[in-house]
Amino acid sequence: MGGIFIALIVQKFGGSSVANAERLRNVAQIVSDTYRAGSDVVVVVSAQGDTTDDLIAKAAEIAVKPPKREMDMLLAAGEEISISLLAMAINEAGIPAVSLLGWQAGFQTDSKYGAARIKSIQTDRVHLELSRKHVVIVAGFQGLCKYDDITTLGRGGSDTSAVALAAALHADKCQIFTDVDGVYTADPRKIEGAKKLSAITYDEMLELATLGAQVLNNRSVEMAKKYRVELEVLSSLAGGKVPGTIVKEVVMEKMLVRGVTKDTDTARISVIGVSDVPGVAYQIFSKLAAKGINVDIILQSIGRNGTKDISFTVGIGHANEAKEILGKLDILTNLDVVLDTNVAKVSVVGAGMETHPGTASKMFEALYSEDINIQMIATSEIKISVLIKADAADRAVSAVHRAFFS
Amino acid sequence: MGGIFIALIVQKFGGSSVANAERLRNVAQIVSDTYRAGSDVVVVVSAQGDTTDDLIAKAAEIAVKPPKREMDMLLAAGEEISISLLAMAINEAGIPAVSLLGWQAGFQTDSKYGAARIKSIQTDRVHLELSRKHVVIVAGFQGLCKYDDITTLGRGGSDTSAVALAAALHADKCQIFTDVDGVYTADPRKIEGAKKLSAITYDEMLELATLGAQVLNNRSVEMAKKYRVELEVLSSLAGGKVPGTIVKEVVMEKMLVRGVTKDTDTARISVIGVSDVPGVAYQIFSKLAAKGINVDIILQSIGRNGTKDISFTVGIGHANEAKEILGKLDILTNLDVVLDTNVAKVSVVGAGMETHPGTASKMFEALYSEDINIQMIATSEIKISVLIKADAADRAVSAVHRAFFS
Repeated sequence: MGGIFIALIVQKFGGSSVANAERLRNVAQIVSDTYRAGSDVVVVVSAQGDTTDDLIAKAAEIAVKPPKREMDMLLAAGEEISISLLAMAINEAGIPAVSLLGWQAGFQTDSKYGAARIKSIQTDRVHLELSRKHVVIVAGFQGLCKYDDITTLGRGGSDTSAVALAAALHADKCQIFTDVDGVYTADPRKIEGAKKLSAITYDEMLELATLGAQVLNNRSVEMAKKYRVELEVLSSLAGGKVPGTIVKEVVMEKMLVRGVTKDTDTARISVIGVSDVPGVAYQIFSKLAAKGINVDIILQSIGRNGTKDISFTVGIGHANEAKEILGKLDILTNLDVVLDTNVAKVSVVGAGMETHPGTASKMFEALYSEDINIQMIATSEIKISVLIKADAADRAVSAVHRAFFS
Repeated sequence: MGGIFIALIVQKFGGSSVANAERLRNVAQIVSDTYRAGSDVVVVVSAQGDTTDDLIAKAAEIAVKPPKREMDMLLAAGEEISISLLAMAINEAGIPAVSLLGWQAGFQTDSKYGAARIKSIQTDRVHLELSRKHVVIVAGFQGLCKYDDITTLGRGGSDTSAVALAAALHADKCQIFTDVDGVYTADPRKIEGAKKLSAITYDEMLELATLGAQVLNNRSVEMAKKYRVELEVLSSLAGGKVPGTIVKEVVMEKMLVRGVTKDTDTARISVIGVSDVPGVAYQIFSKLAAKGINVDIILQSIGRNGTKDISFTVGIGHANEAKEILGKLDILTNLDVVLDTNVAKVSVVGAGMETHPGTASKMFEALYSEDINIQMIATSEIKISVLIKADAADRAVSAVHRAFFS
């Protein structure tokens, strides 16, 4: 190319972006515009709309617990349909495009069917197609293990496929197209005055993702951070013309707080009057960890009269199981294990707060002004989370957002 | 296995046999019974019911003429769904089963997308799975070309996949499960007294297939003949318990006539008064061949007064195109090219007739007794075909069948 710099862009489109012929044509337009602007383009696609759910329903008619290997074989058909249809739509738009299954695009995974991890990506075929000036459409979510069996990366895996491929190809940018046009300071459908962020750091995005912003799959952000892949979150409905939110290592304009989120998918478990002897916390949390139950906020009172209180939060889907596990512990015999699912976690996230000690008190003041009681508090270097009653969550987010952004 | 003989059986099930969960369970039962009886079992499956048509409709929404490579990618998803669901159903029946895509089962094809031909089958993976006592479910209709692209064999290709795999594995038998329970002396839904044949030769089956018996794809019978694969045609609805029709090289009990068929998918084209000079037939039929139009029966009258008449039959789908081609030939200028689509071909097939010269006259007598006029006659070593008016076809088949089988 004689010294001319050709940018390589990876674009990822989710299931709703390719749900039908009209949406596919819309995506073809975005891809074609990028190609015509002079970039090499690799596109990673999920299965169309409800395809994955439909295939799961078909399997459920046959078996309660189908072999995971066969589930992966079944589900991988979903992207095979969407990649070939998108390749047709792009060819129809006058741009040469070729579709590749996960294994054809070189995705090698481990053999943990249903939740496989990418081990390596052999990019020869993708490079070959790019050298022929083809747009390359790659099936997200899937790969091949060492037994030559099809594997899937689990739900949300297409984001990870896109970021991993961008890293392997040393792409200049990885654009993740979604239903929203970027990352906001709060949920724009609910909070008046929520602002779109032009840029955000990986760490901030990780905290936001964990806290329920539901924009980007966490694993993909971790991978982007590890391999320094510049991400952009933007809307496929806006035709790719409206700039989204850039996710990268360092963001110049530091804001005190980057966003306010709520997470109602949480439950609190408390045990009152536990013996104040060493090893209690270990016994409780090792048992939960052994069952794969992630614990979020943990609060332990100071021992008094030989007893102490322990509270923690878990994902609501694990709440009953966690309560049962605690009920069987010898050290908790005769103690009440109380489960409260009527709680929500509200958090503020921002790399700026590291150097601004006033953030926490500003948040607490906003909650106090709304007469909202704080049950638990947890902090990290770049976030502050509080647990409150679920029915106060929206009011809390509004008040906190107002305090920081108006 | 210490001298114990383990039979290897390839079983092929078409799209309607695996159309839904209930049908899949029925197929799983047949396969499981075969496995439990002590055989190694390899199963070749088509896409479920209307899946292929649904996928074609999806493509049609996107492009009038989608790239064939992408169509193959799209359609191959159909069998990926059916093989994994069938593997689940067989596992659910308590038998270990594993599904393999065409490329995983080693199907190497040429790169004629949409109508690829099998070049070789690397059976290592299938043998490995069989050695683990797995039932192996293989996606029919598909393979991989030298560019590592997915290819399809064209419609009806699953029969060919099954026979080719049976040949490569040196299977003891290849069972083709269909909606009918065997090959009959005539269409049993229409002809009273039609009898199921217990056995038939490859050549007889080829003639019957060509003539519209619609039981087996012709290419698969040719391949079975070439590699001496013993075929059995039987019904999936009967649970595999009712013996079907065996297709093999030599059938001991020779019958004069093996079956009577009709084919209404035919049209007659006639040109009257063609100059009786050399090269006329060549000019007509080379032009048709160049357009890929197959001509079946050809009839040329003896020259008289410097002219002759030429008639021939073609598939009804090519009739108008053939008429147009003839209309443009210089040697036919000013002559009427007459097309008659109201015709049917009725044939008797049987390896026995080679040595029984009376077959033709017996057939003609039966037609005469019904007052049916014969327009054209064509014969081969093992068949006699006549062209008659379409509305007399059913009556003709009945009369001829009665003459030979009652």
